[in-house]
Amino acid sequence: MSATQFTIAEIAERFELPFHGDGTRVIDGVGTLAGASPSQLSFLSNSKYGAQLAATGAGVVVLREENLADCPTAALVARDPYVAYAKIAALFEQLPASPAGIHASAVVDPDARVAPTASVGPCCVVESGAVIEDGAILGPHCIVGAGCVVGAQSRLVARVTLVTRVTLGKRVIVHPGAVIGSDGFGLAFDRDHWIKLPQLGGVRIGDDCEIGANTTIDRGALEDTVLEEDVRLDNQIQIAHNVHIGAHSAMAGCAAVAGSAKIGRYCMIGGNAGVLGHLELADRVTITAKSLVTHSIREPGEYSSGVPLQENRLWRRNAARFKHLDEYARRLSALEKDSNND
Amino acid sequence: MSATQFTIAEIAERFELPFHGDGTRVIDGVGTLAGASPSQLSFLSNSKYGAQLAATGAGVVVLREENLADCPTAALVARDPYVAYAKIAALFEQLPASPAGIHASAVVDPDARVAPTASVGPCCVVESGAVIEDGAILGPHCIVGAGCVVGAQSRLVARVTLVTRVTLGKRVIVHPGAVIGSDGFGLAFDRDHWIKLPQLGGVRIGDDCEIGANTTIDRGALEDTVLEEDVRLDNQIQIAHNVHIGAHSAMAGCAAVAGSAKIGRYCMIGGNAGVLGHLELADRVTITAKSLVTHSIREPGEYSSGVPLQENRLWRRNAARFKHLDEYARRLSALEKDSNND
Amino acid sequence: MSATQFTIAEIAERFELPFHGDGTRVIDGVGTLAGASPSQLSFLSNSKYGAQLAATGAGVVVLREENLADCPTAALVARDPYVAYAKIAALFEQLPASPAGIHASAVVDPDARVAPTASVGPCCVVESGAVIEDGAILGPHCIVGAGCVVGAQSRLVARVTLVTRVTLGKRVIVHPGAVIGSDGFGLAFDRDHWIKLPQLGGVRIGDDCEIGANTTIDRGALEDTVLEEDVRLDNQIQIAHNVHIGAHSAMAGCAAVAGSAKIGRYCMIGGNAGVLGHLELADRVTITAKSLVTHSIREPGEYSSGVPLQENRLWRRNAARFKHLDEYARRLSALEKDSNND
Repeated sequence: MSATQFTIAEIAERFELPFHGDGTRVIDGVGTLAGASPSQLSFLSNSKYGAQLAATGAGVVVLREENLADCPTAALVARDPYVAYAKIAALFEQLPASPAGIHASAVVDPDARVAPTASVGPCCVVESGAVIEDGAILGPHCIVGAGCVVGAQSRLVARVTLVTRVTLGKRVIVHPGAVIGSDGFGLAFDRDHWIKLPQLGGVRIGDDCEIGANTTIDRGALEDTVLEEDVRLDNQIQIAHNVHIGAHSAMAGCAAVAGSAKIGRYCMIGGNAGVLGHLELADRVTITAKSLVTHSIREPGEYSSGVPLQENRLWRRNAARFKHLDEYARRLSALEKDSNND
Repeated sequence: MSATQFTIAEIAERFELPFHGDGTRVIDGVGTLAGASPSQLSFLSNSKYGAQLAATGAGVVVLREENLADCPTAALVARDPYVAYAKIAALFEQLPASPAGIHASAVVDPDARVAPTASVGPCCVVESGAVIEDGAILGPHCIVGAGCVVGAQSRLVARVTLVTRVTLGKRVIVHPGAVIGSDGFGLAFDRDHWIKLPQLGGVRIGDDCEIGANTTIDRGALEDTVLEEDVRLDNQIQIAHNVHIGAHSAMAGCAAVAGSAKIGRYCMIGGNAGVLGHLELADRVTITAKSLVTHSIREPGEYSSGVPLQENRLWRRNAARFKHLDEYARRLSALEKDSNND
Repeated sequence: MSATQFTIAEIAERFELPFHGDGTRVIDGVGTLAGASPSQLSFLSNSKYGAQLAATGAGVVVLREENLADCPTAALVARDPYVAYAKIAALFEQLPASPAGIHASAVVDPDARVAPTASVGPCCVVESGAVIEDGAILGPHCIVGAGCVVGAQSRLVARVTLVTRVTLGKRVIVHPGAVIGSDGFGLAFDRDHWIKLPQLGGVRIGDDCEIGANTTIDRGALEDTVLEEDVRLDNQIQIAHNVHIGAHSAMAGCAAVAGSAKIGRYCMIGGNAGVLGHLELADRVTITAKSLVTHSIREPGEYSSGVPLQENRLWRRNAARFKHLDEYARRLSALEKDSNND
């Protein structure tokens, strides 16, 4: 169904990858090693799928030099086949057409500025002072609040809310349901009730960031919440006010970062992991899934918390003992002392 | 206020349940044992609420044969009173009227196909190639993206987003804020920055599934993300790309499943539990709340991780000891060796 | 840029705070101790920022009497500087203008009642029987379902969904993406498939509550889900059906409460903490981040679960030992018995 097609030789030339086999074969899509057809391209990145390579029906496979001998079909040789595949596959992605201009059902404030090459979809609302830069795309139902900026070539897929004082850089992608620039959770306790602290800062999102579906990023209390460039956030992530995330860091689904935490560059935060407020993480820190970071981390490396999964009956016994761990440690020391005194 | 009413005898006949007491009494609603009025029906499913049965003001109670003697009012006898109650209560649910046809404020692409018996609510957006089948209901603010299919009698309650290549079966219910078919979180690391992998698959949701509010289900990278029939997802659940969930499995709020995991049939995943990527869970596996599944599970049964809640001061002492557990185990073994050598 | 300005003396008088220094100085905004300019007000609440006080460029600082001597600029003296600051800062917050009346793009049912002083923004949908009281503000894209009530002076920031049978008190703030009144997750297992229980209750939200972005609050199965007054919920929180939360309790991001749990007054629930269903928490209970509450708590105090974060290599060793904790405890007891018998 795709109109997009390239010969293997054309792909090889475009991505500067040596190829083996018949370069004239036409490729019109991509697929898994197990599922690809003779007109599709596949890839082998992890050698544990070597058996699938031997049996593949793909027309061409992107792989490392070392796997070439085992390839039953044409091959493109790459230093990092997964990266090469990612770039090639983008050729075959069909994004929805987003014609320049403002849909008749959109509500755009006269004091907003929308570039003529930008696309504003059905039912969008663009408030006073907002700026939509060249080639930016607002899918259906996006809200761009007062004074927000959507940088050039950025794409709000659908139903994205930028509340206020949010600036997106260039080529930022935001997925449906994401809310950026909502009030930080700032409260002062006044004897017997809560007083809300006004959230007077904004949010700055760097170039090439990606924000997942239903992810929330609060604006700062006084200064800004900041994501440097190329930060990648999966779905349902919560970023509290005044958080700062360094360039090229990535966070998996349902992770959460509390207020004023500062995460370094090239960090990897696992699914449903959490970082408490006001902590600092050095560059290149990895936190495994569901771990809770309760102190600052000064050294790169991988960090974890949690206990292993067990059959419930066994787990109950062990978990019950956890409540006495301190006592056990003391009893162990006492026994050792006893034993040494013997 | 409800216009719906039935005599006890009519209910008994419709659901094939024996009744005791005055069958001519009119019932116009349902309530708890403690709160129901004489014109309402209640149920006793768990014997620990037996004391409430004795004092109930309900007009009729659905219960097991064994509780009949303790019932001060009319009774309907069922093998499983909770199931019988669920079916009866549905009689008294008043769903909002959803007239067939397309609301004047909706934006429907000329290349979409909407069945004449379907209802498309205010501000909905239905894109090119989308199909809305017989009797399907789109509440206000739903977006049905290019090429998506909403099966017959399905109901998108309000503000549901189907991004692209999403197929819903029949009688599927999707609650507000849910996003289905968003990009999977696929990235390749190219020396010093991320490359996005295009997400070329779709999502297939089987008949009779239910998807909770603000839940997200990503579409597959190459093949589809799949929920078989009668899968029940609560609110704020995250389902990553290429996940496969077997029929009749249910997941509680805030659970999350990472990419390419395969969950069996009749599984129960507790609230905020997580399943790591590429794992497999057999049929009839139960995971308790907040547990993290870090390896595949081959046998049905109940599995858990975590440690018990304690008063913070006690917990701190025990948690600090956890960091030395390996050392304690070694010291214990050394003592035992010592003791045996005595 | 702000048109709002006050002299220090005016602020002092309005909030009944003694001041020191030049009361004629004009203040037009607020800032951090480190970042504030001479026309801005700052505060010192935590003495650990004392060094920042000495170096501040702020025009005036709200602080405790005891820090007055170290203040290089004008000062306002408060018993609780954070509370005083919260109240003063509100003077400088510029909320978007929300003109009374119904935007031309909104869809309001003729059987809804909207107060003339209320504001209904672009693309809002207000269904039959809904009531929008005096001075309430509905930002863009809000849905107020059949029979819902939005109390006087409440503000739905944008894209808020009230599904059905939801009543908000006065001065309630709801942030974008929040869904209130969605179906509770009620299922009965009928031999080999699920039966949905109709959710016939509603949701009642007290005065002065605040509900965060993408938070979900389900309506009750038979009776109502209830938040008493001044409950403060951060983003991405899940409140299941029939939960009851006492006045002045606050919950941080990604926390979750399962069905029919009852949380007391003045409780504090940490980020991503969970409370299982049908439990009760006394007043003034604090649960730390990511803890899971698995039993009712009768006494006020702070409670925790979880294990500390460690470098992954060390953590693995300790975590593996957790699976044998019960065995270790038995071996320890055996050794002690041995030792006593010596």
